[in-house]
This record gives sequence, structure tokens and C-alpha cells, in this order.
Amino acid sequence: MSLNELELIGRLTPSLATNASVVTGAGDDCAVLDLGLPGKVLLFKTDAVVEGVHFTAETPPEKIGHKALARCFSDIAAMGGTPSSVLITLGLPDGFDAARVEQIYAGMNALARRYDVAIAGGETTRNPGQLLLSVAAIGTVPKDGCIRRAGAKPGDAIFVTGELGGSLAGKHLDFEPRVAEANWLREHFPPHAMIDLSDGLAGDLRHLLHAGGVGAELLARAIPVSRAAKLAARDHPDAKPALLAALTDGEDFELLFTTASQQAVRLLDAWKARFPDVRLSCIGKVQTGTEVVLRDATGCRPFPQHGYVHFT
Amino acid sequence: MSLNELELIGRLTPSLATNASVVTGAGDDCAVLDLGLPGKVLLFKTDAVVEGVHFTAETPPEKIGHKALARCFSDIAAMGGTPSSVLITLGLPDGFDAARVEQIYAGMNALARRYDVAIAGGETTRNPGQLLLSVAAIGTVPKDGCIRRAGAKPGDAIFVTGELGGSLAGKHLDFEPRVAEANWLREHFPPHAMIDLSDGLAGDLRHLLHAGGVGAELLARAIPVSRAAKLAARDHPDAKPALLAALTDGEDFELLFTTASQQAVRLLDAWKARFPDVRLSCIGKVQTGTEVVLRDATGCRPFPQHGYVHFT
Repeated sequence: MSLNELELIGRLTPSLATNASVVTGAGDDCAVLDLGLPGKVLLFKTDAVVEGVHFTAETPPEKIGHKALARCFSDIAAMGGTPSSVLITLGLPDGFDAARVEQIYAGMNALARRYDVAIAGGETTRNPGQLLLSVAAIGTVPKDGCIRRAGAKPGDAIFVTGELGGSLAGKHLDFEPRVAEANWLREHFPPHAMIDLSDGLAGDLRHLLHAGGVGAELLARAIPVSRAAKLAARDHPDAKPALLAALTDGEDFELLFTTASQQAVRLLDAWKARFPDVRLSCIGKVQTGTEVVLRDATGCRPFPQHGYVHFT
Repeated sequence: MSLNELELIGRLTPSLATNASVVTGAGDDCAVLDLGLPGKVLLFKTDAVVEGVHFTAETPPEKIGHKALARCFSDIAAMGGTPSSVLITLGLPDGFDAARVEQIYAGMNALARRYDVAIAGGETTRNPGQLLLSVAAIGTVPKDGCIRRAGAKPGDAIFVTGELGGSLAGKHLDFEPRVAEANWLREHFPPHAMIDLSDGLAGDLRHLLHAGGVGAELLARAIPVSRAAKLAARDHPDAKPALLAALTDGEDFELLFTTASQQAVRLLDAWKARFPDVRLSCIGKVQTGTEVVLRDATGCRPFPQHGYVHFT
């Protein structure tokens, strides 16, 4: 996202129309709406993928569909919620390839069925320049269990699921959204704050900390660096060092959350029993102030500022 | 919409993933979802407008915003419902004009405030070719009051609000979505079937009749032809005859519905008292079979087949 886009959003957001149903508007992973569902609030999210920005002409079409839908599921998971229905807006370039679009839908249908989510319709429109898929998703979460970006408390332990960095080598197209993990966390170890990693750990951690008005100290050796990031750093002389890739690459689609440090050990044990194939790492702790530092063998240094920048 | 798009939708729709919450999926004005709201169902709709397809570089930006949002409100009205929240997906071309985008949002905010609808967030993405606005909307309607396209019965009177044709002369950019009218109808004269006119009367009437497995006879002299369509026919030798424009021009965003013929006179009287500034016309009746005919002074002839084709 260019700085201009961020500035634009900053200018548009304060004046958006609102009403009594809005619990949380722009600025979290999903909008949270109270429409009178007994015991629950509605989660509402849109997310678009565009050819040349989020995928290329060479991307296997089923994976484009998977990615488009899974990104929205990941945002709903980040609030502790469960996706329920989606609508698909398909922007078709002139001379589009119908068979490719059908394969994209096959990828979406396969993921939707596994999560018992309905593709309840949508629309097609001409988008002369390139293929665009926009997903609008609805989900629900128990009213007293909705987890926001804000809420991290000084002393909290900071956790991240999975392994980070190098997602563009493949994971960004076939990642599993952490819906089961997020719902289990909400039920058993309610996070104080949570976000999904789309822009990279460095950027998204700052979003989470900024929302809570707190800072953090991270342990360099605790950051779970992906095999893809390590291989890239080893094999490509121009590649980022693996740790930097884990901190700043985008599209990890893992969960980043904080919880009371007293339950950290119990959480790690229970997690290992429940999700033996998904790594969970305690990577640092929340502090007062707004500084974010990275501690390694040589001491503390400032944490990288920037997250993900789109690859085109 | 090109035939290829229609064929594509026809191929994609039968295999869409579904679940127990879906009351009505693809193929109506909105998706209808039962998520357990007491006495109500949720309406869910997305609709996109694209530069060069639905508006041009010369369109006043506030009107682009108005149109983008009002189209979704019109679809929610067509089910008898009330819009509640929207999310906006903004596809930004390279070198976009931030001031123009702010004015587009001003148009959306103004309409949203008048209808007590929240703009609860959204996102921006690069869309290199041209500006694209996709609106995802949520609304509600009483569970026993939701009005679908299907349901027209032989003998029903067919009504249309407002005046038809020539919308591209201006109305398509500043029309008022018929939310108040649709809710009043649902409460006082529940339609058997309803649709909003986006593709033109000829096309959308066929959608409604096809959904109900019925035909119709229309009265040519009862079709409410807009002043814009009459002026165009008078002033431009190449323009469609005004009646043909009223039948086949798109983007009228009026309500087309059927109701028991016994209450037609009572409805027309009550309407005039409640909505003195909005014309309501009884334009014909539903018949058995699947034929659609237009009766004029010379007898009956087949009804035009085609609705709107986008103007670029």
C-alpha cells in the first residue's frame, strides 16, 4: 500500500457515516455490528485480490480462488469468529478466459465447503484492465468473546502461530486460515488483543500495539523463521537475511496475539496437545510506552519499521 | 452484461457452496440469510461501479458515490428490506486523484446519513486500469415479509413506480432508492413478487416472470414513459422511440411488483395519499404460460426481448 493510500484512508475514515449498530467500524480486522443476534455480534469484511498485484497470469487459478477467500476467513479468525457466508464480485477484463474463472471458483468452493461457508451469490462486472476478485464475508462471534486489535496490556506475553517470512515462495496461495485455532483460543485462553499477519510482523505488531497504546520487547531468537525464508537467504545473495524476512515479509496469514503472561506456559502445553502440527511461539512481552525493541545476543535495538510492500 | 458473462454465471451458479443459513442464494436481488436474528432475516448484496462502464471521468464525483451506494439500497428495497451497513472496496488506478476520491466519499456519506446506514469500513487496493468502487451491503427484513422475484400469480396486477427510460440523461446518477416505498408496500399491500429495475423493464420483467413460471400482458398506454425518454425521442432523430426506451433502457432503479388484482384500486388510492410525488402505474396483468405480450391500439405483439446493455 502506498503512503498516499494510507494518507487517503486517514482522511476518509473520520467522517464515515455511522449508526447505532456499529460496535467497531473502520480500523480493525473486521467491522463488528450488533444487529440483535442473541448473544452474538456480526463480523463484516471485504477483501480484494487483483491480477498483477496479488497474483499473476501464471498463478494456478484454484489457488487464486483459495487465496481470495482464505484472506477473508483469516480476518474473521483474527476477531475470534467463524465465517458464515460470502458474496463474490468478479471484475472481468475484456476477453476473459471462462475456464480460468471456473477453476478460480473451484478453488473457492473447495475452501468454502471445508469451512461450511456459503457462497451466496455476487456479481460480475467489466473491469477492462485486469481480473479482480472482491470477497465480501459475514461471520459471527459471541458478543463477549470478540477479540480486537486494542486490548494488549503491559506484561502480556506476545504469541504468534506458525512460521514467518518467505510466504511469496508459495504459502500466500495455499495457507490455511486459522479459524479453528482462533476459536479455540477464544474459548480456552482469551487473547487480550489479536490481529492476523497480512502486512508482515513488524507492521502488524505496530498496529496491534498502537491500538492498545503500548510498546513491546521482542526476542530475536524466539521469532519463528520459516524454512522458505531460510532457504531464500541461503540461496540468493540478494535476499533479505532470514530474520528480517520473518519480520517484514507480508502475507503470512498467521495469528498474532497477546495474553496474560501467567498463563503462557499452560497455553503452550494445551496448544501442543490440541494443534500438534501448528507451531506456537512466545516471541516477547508487552511493555508500557510506545517503543518496540528487538533483543538479541548483542543487546536491544529498534524493531524494523516497515511491513509488507506489494510485490509489483 | 455480455452473453458470455451470462453464460459464465449460468455455469458457476449451480455448484456454489451453500449451508444451512442460506434462505435464498444467487439469483435474487439480494442473498437472504437466516443467522438467528429474532423475527428477521439478513439481506446481503454486493454491487460494483467501474469507470468507463458505469460512470466516466467527467461524472461529478459526489454522484459516483451516490450511485454506487444507491444501487445497493435499491436491491435491498426490492426485497422489502432496510439497509443497515456497508463496506466500500476502492480499486485505485495508478496516479489516482485523492480529492476526487474524497468527493466520491462525500456523496456516499450524504446518502448513508439520510438512510441511517453506517459505512463501517472497507479497504483500498490497486486496480491499475481504472477506478472501481464495490459496495457490500447488509440489510434486514422481517422473516415473513421478505419479497422475492418468484411469487407472481396468474391474475396479479403488475405495478411499476416512477417513470421509465432515458435514465442515462441524468437520473442514473441521482435517483432515490425506493426504500420507504418498498417498506410501506410490504407493510400495507404485500407484493407477491418484486424486483428493482436495473437492466430495463423488458429484461427485469422477464426475470420476475421466469422466476414465477408465468407470463404477462402489458398495456402500452399504461407504461409510464419518462420526460427524458420523450425529449430524446423528439430531439434526436437516431434515438429510440420513447416507449421502446421506457421498455429497454436500463438503470431506472424503480420497483416492479405484482399484487392481487382485487386490491389494485385500493393500493393506487393509498399510494397517492402516502407518496404524492412518486407515480405508481398499473401496467398489465400476470397470465398463465410464459408468453409476454404488449397490447396497444392495433392489438397484441410480442414484448421486446432485451433489456439494458452497458453504454460502453
